[in-house]
Amino acid sequence: MREALPPGSTIGILGGGQLGRMLAVAASRLGLKIHIYSDEPDPPAFAVAAARTVAGYNDADALLKFAGAVDVVTCEFENVPTAALEAAGRNAPVFPPPRAFAVAQDRLAEKDFLQELGIAVAPFAPIGSVRELQAALPGIGFPALLKTRRFGYDGKGQVMIRSQSEAEAALDSIGHVPAVLEGVVLFEREISVVAVRAQDGTLHFYDPSENVHQDGILARSRVPAPISATCVFEARKIAGKIANALSYVGVICVEMFQRMGDGSALVVNEIAPRVHNSGHWTLDACLVSQFENHIRAIAGWPLGETSRHSDAVMANIIGADADRWRDFASAEGTSLHLYGKEEARPGRKMGHFIRLYPKT
Amino acid sequence: MREALPPGSTIGILGGGQLGRMLAVAASRLGLKIHIYSDEPDPPAFAVAAARTVAGYNDADALLKFAGAVDVVTCEFENVPTAALEAAGRNAPVFPPPRAFAVAQDRLAEKDFLQELGIAVAPFAPIGSVRELQAALPGIGFPALLKTRRFGYDGKGQVMIRSQSEAEAALDSIGHVPAVLEGVVLFEREISVVAVRAQDGTLHFYDPSENVHQDGILARSRVPAPISATCVFEARKIAGKIANALSYVGVICVEMFQRMGDGSALVVNEIAPRVHNSGHWTLDACLVSQFENHIRAIAGWPLGETSRHSDAVMANIIGADADRWRDFASAEGTSLHLYGKEEARPGRKMGHFIRLYPKT
Repeated sequence: MREALPPGSTIGILGGGQLGRMLAVAASRLGLKIHIYSDEPDPPAFAVAAARTVAGYNDADALLKFAGAVDVVTCEFENVPTAALEAAGRNAPVFPPPRAFAVAQDRLAEKDFLQELGIAVAPFAPIGSVRELQAALPGIGFPALLKTRRFGYDGKGQVMIRSQSEAEAALDSIGHVPAVLEGVVLFEREISVVAVRAQDGTLHFYDPSENVHQDGILARSRVPAPISATCVFEARKIAGKIANALSYVGVICVEMFQRMGDGSALVVNEIAPRVHNSGHWTLDACLVSQFENHIRAIAGWPLGETSRHSDAVMANIIGADADRWRDFASAEGTSLHLYGKEEARPGRKMGHFIRLYPKT
Repeated sequence: MREALPPGSTIGILGGGQLGRMLAVAASRLGLKIHIYSDEPDPPAFAVAAARTVAGYNDADALLKFAGAVDVVTCEFENVPTAALEAAGRNAPVFPPPRAFAVAQDRLAEKDFLQELGIAVAPFAPIGSVRELQAALPGIGFPALLKTRRFGYDGKGQVMIRSQSEAEAALDSIGHVPAVLEGVVLFEREISVVAVRAQDGTLHFYDPSENVHQDGILARSRVPAPISATCVFEARKIAGKIANALSYVGVICVEMFQRMGDGSALVVNEIAPRVHNSGHWTLDACLVSQFENHIRAIAGWPLGETSRHSDAVMANIIGADADRWRDFASAEGTSLHLYGKEEARPGRKMGHFIRLYPKT
């Protein structure tokens, strides 16, 4: 067990997107400094960082120097090369543990890991060739989802297969990279649990949110999710089991499907070893946000409150919707969060807003 | 009426203390950038600023250059030289209006301004010499407070006079600078109203807080203040009258005494033309804090919610109390805010914590 990093210490963050930006702001509340490492020249998090490094994630020298200048290293995106974490780890402690990234970056490793823990996942099969895909399809059934093992996010790197004859075209469309074939789970809803685990193993949970996606991108999250207390309990149990098995430190998000017609039966869809879009509502509906609790955990501080003082709906602002910032800014009972991104490309997350309601 | 500054614009702030730091963080939520101007080499706000200038407040060239690099200029401390505001004003709009600083910086001008508006103040007399002081004391009565006209804050620059014979020593102790003699108001409590006024004159109010001082420094604020609805109404009316008379833009704080035994009779103690320590509770008990509403007002944005979702107590962390950060961080139902100051000098505001309670 390490000593807590005192106020004035520096948190190093690999990645400079909106998650890094909100982590930086959370760290500032605690009197901690932020050093952002990014491979882009002016990412959103630079505007609120005390120190900045621009270098590639394969630049071992830059990573060593960066880690030498900070007191702890963390990460705001999950596809960071594990070699980068290892390089940084030679000069500073790294949280969450690199194994969490290795598991989350590979859909096959992730599913194997979950199955070993006895956690339900969608039926799946590893796919390396058209022949393997054709052989696996009848067992998985239709429709089925073909997903690349690596680098998938926001619905990218996946394709729906509706009949045996679509197999070859599906593999073509993902460039014949190693893949996983998944059965489609018929679900009532998607929920996610944001948990935070401290260095001493203390686990706290935020309330599960119900998440709605549009075009493969998270559109809205709301708390409380309309699920039973038993289902909340099961969801937390699963997230806790995962965090403990990984000896996790920091915030972790587990996305789950609630099976159709079967109250508390949950199937895990994905693990994100980081703060997560479906936890943004904690910024305004909780005293201590997911961002601050991640910083507290990796800095060895006592975890903060995860209870909710209000009900909330969080909605993402995507692409050209950002032009409507005046409307969002004047909406009643609503807070607006913009990420400081200049170019509003289609599908790009530009910000979000949160509407609060009295707690039910 | 100016156009609202779009996301991506830069807010220039004169001063780099904790108020500038929290303003910078609030601006980042709205996708706005911050440029901090400070006469210190590494003030708290630099750690969360996109751009930084170190120069004196009498350096006209530096002020012009600074104002030329930003889209609007504001201020986080009230004793900024008005000449600095005028210099900056040649290259950018400046909010709040410089007149608000001129009034707030001089206790005599402040009292004259309030009296002209028909707002009750403590009995007072301008003091320029021992003779004037001796002549004024019998009319004001004992005890009386001798206060420097300028540069008073946190109880500095004032001395209590308990008898006619203490007059000369009192003037000695404040160095014979121009002063004001004030009668002591017997009060039930001190309250303050944080208001925000937009460029179009829209006025919003946060709930009045009750404030408790120790050694001349604010120790705690709590909302709601235990005062009647009539008293809340009167307090808002006074703050609104002041803001309107100054054609104010931004957040203003008005400190008032509730007279002993006389329910809603209020006496104004002080005007602060800025975000204020007694409004820090808005960071966690409101959807939009005083800091964000100040930024919204000066940027020409729609004002945000000022309603309170929770009751709150804010307590300052002063001097060596900051060593107890672990205790504060682990207190139940409490958020911790540290300002990133290295040296915990006696009387120095190092941070604060906020405890929330369900709204009554």
